[in-house]
Amino acid sequence: MKLTILGCYSATPRTFTNPTSQVLEIRKHLFLIDCGEGTQVQLRKYKVKFSRIKHIFISHLHGDHFFGLPGLISTFRLLGRESELHIYGPKGIKEAVTLLLKLGDSWTNYPLFFHELDSSKSETLFEDDEVSVNTIPLDHRVYTNGFLFKEKPAVRKLDIEAVKEHQIDRSQYHNIKNGKNGVAKNGTEIPNVDLTEDPPKPKSYAFCSDTAYNETIIPIIENVELLYHESTFLESEAHLCSKTKHSTAKQAAIIAKKATVGTLILGHYSTRYKSLDLFKEEALEVFDNVELADDGKSFNI
Amino acid sequence: MKLTILGCYSATPRTFTNPTSQVLEIRKHLFLIDCGEGTQVQLRKYKVKFSRIKHIFISHLHGDHFFGLPGLISTFRLLGRESELHIYGPKGIKEAVTLLLKLGDSWTNYPLFFHELDSSKSETLFEDDEVSVNTIPLDHRVYTNGFLFKEKPAVRKLDIEAVKEHQIDRSQYHNIKNGKNGVAKNGTEIPNVDLTEDPPKPKSYAFCSDTAYNETIIPIIENVELLYHESTFLESEAHLCSKTKHSTAKQAAIIAKKATVGTLILGHYSTRYKSLDLFKEEALEVFDNVELADDGKSFNI
Repeated sequence: MKLTILGCYSATPRTFTNPTSQVLEIRKHLFLIDCGEGTQVQLRKYKVKFSRIKHIFISHLHGDHFFGLPGLISTFRLLGRESELHIYGPKGIKEAVTLLLKLGDSWTNYPLFFHELDSSKSETLFEDDEVSVNTIPLDHRVYTNGFLFKEKPAVRKLDIEAVKEHQIDRSQYHNIKNGKNGVAKNGTEIPNVDLTEDPPKPKSYAFCSDTAYNETIIPIIENVELLYHESTFLESEAHLCSKTKHSTAKQAAIIAKKATVGTLILGHYSTRYKSLDLFKEEALEVFDNVELADDGKSFNI
Repeated sequence: MKLTILGCYSATPRTFTNPTSQVLEIRKHLFLIDCGEGTQVQLRKYKVKFSRIKHIFISHLHGDHFFGLPGLISTFRLLGRESELHIYGPKGIKEAVTLLLKLGDSWTNYPLFFHELDSSKSETLFEDDEVSVNTIPLDHRVYTNGFLFKEKPAVRKLDIEAVKEHQIDRSQYHNIKNGKNGVAKNGTEIPNVDLTEDPPKPKSYAFCSDTAYNETIIPIIENVELLYHESTFLESEAHLCSKTKHSTAKQAAIIAKKATVGTLILGHYSTRYKSLDLFKEEALEVFDNVELADDGKSFNI
């Protein structure tokens, strides 16, 4: 699993900072999460292959999370895309994008599907054999969801030496990988644990931006390896959180601690701060594993 | 008069090239012309003061001329703008921008006025004592206007030496600058030409993008000092012009020649071409004064 931050600053794009967008490589998928203005340029800069993006998740319809989407959809058309594109986002996103395409008489030549969200409960947006994606209802000024990306448990790993030793026929491999016992050439049943090893632990990533401090997300994000939680402000500006419905670095760390996550990534910094170090310092007082998001930075698990 | 090119490439923004946007300083005004994605970043990069922009002219509603507008409007709000903003563009632009602001619950805190266009004839969009702005109906796949910016003639320049010599009272200066004769202290009438000099010739700029070769614009743009005319293609790709409703560099030069303009600026290059030199060479075969637009380049008159 690899997360690449394309942009992680709040509010408006600037010469050297970009609004929210991320790409998550998880199993065979490449998911785009949020799409602030300039995202398509960031995708090119970090050499993300446009055709690999088949699912785009939009947390909410503030410009800094969404205004790059119409341009990206148009660019896909210009690049001759033919494969399906699925967009998951708040109710209204379809009308907005459709109107912009209509005004430019620029319909896509590829199938474009909108999955509009309006539930206040966590729901499953996408699921296949490898991965599931669920919403994380957040508390912001407009209807907003975070997203929880979870790998499914992989099949058990075949112990080739053991399988050969017991002279087990290849036709059994599929079942053994899926937990069944094996049958040796001499007819003896061999317990699965003697023929396989545990697969790698499934990984998970929770994206939580934008939101006020909100403990109701804890049961949903509990024990994820990686949590991106917005930290627009430092505690010195905590008084701005209630009006703007954002969090401080300390609040993000409290959520990370209570949810016993692996690593906390901070981001969505207000551009009022000259240095990001104070965000990390503030969060480290509460929680041990803190990383700072920055445009172009990647996190591998 | 100073024209700064913020972006001049067709289609999609890339790491080092930007879609169409320009700022024109003319007398006390700073007009923004088109607003492709990333324009607000370009404005910052070239240190254009956001608060000086009071009028934005949008040629047509293709993304590469327009998708930066919602973000710029939002940024003005975040910067605490209070002064009026006037947007001139094709019918539908108000609905599109309003919908995006509504979805984000992000109304502007400054007065925002839309002036929607649907006429196929040239019309006056803006006029004050100093400047006028008129549409130039273009021939593109969707409803499109170019824009003609014209300085009004300045008042005549007072010849201070002559005025003193004739002992002309200050109270007459205003009338003399506006062409009236003066009256000397001894009662003699002094012809205006003896008291004033010609003011600088009023300047004009025509912006024509996007358009197929279209001779009907010639009477409108005749004799402008500066013409920006799109040249998406070279003659080697002329066969693409009729379907896409774009022009070649040669066609742009023919228009410049027939309209006897001062200088032709080429732009809106297709990104298929590795070098821009061929555009200039092709146009120079037809017309003498050819310049290449490029992102960040300025033209002073």
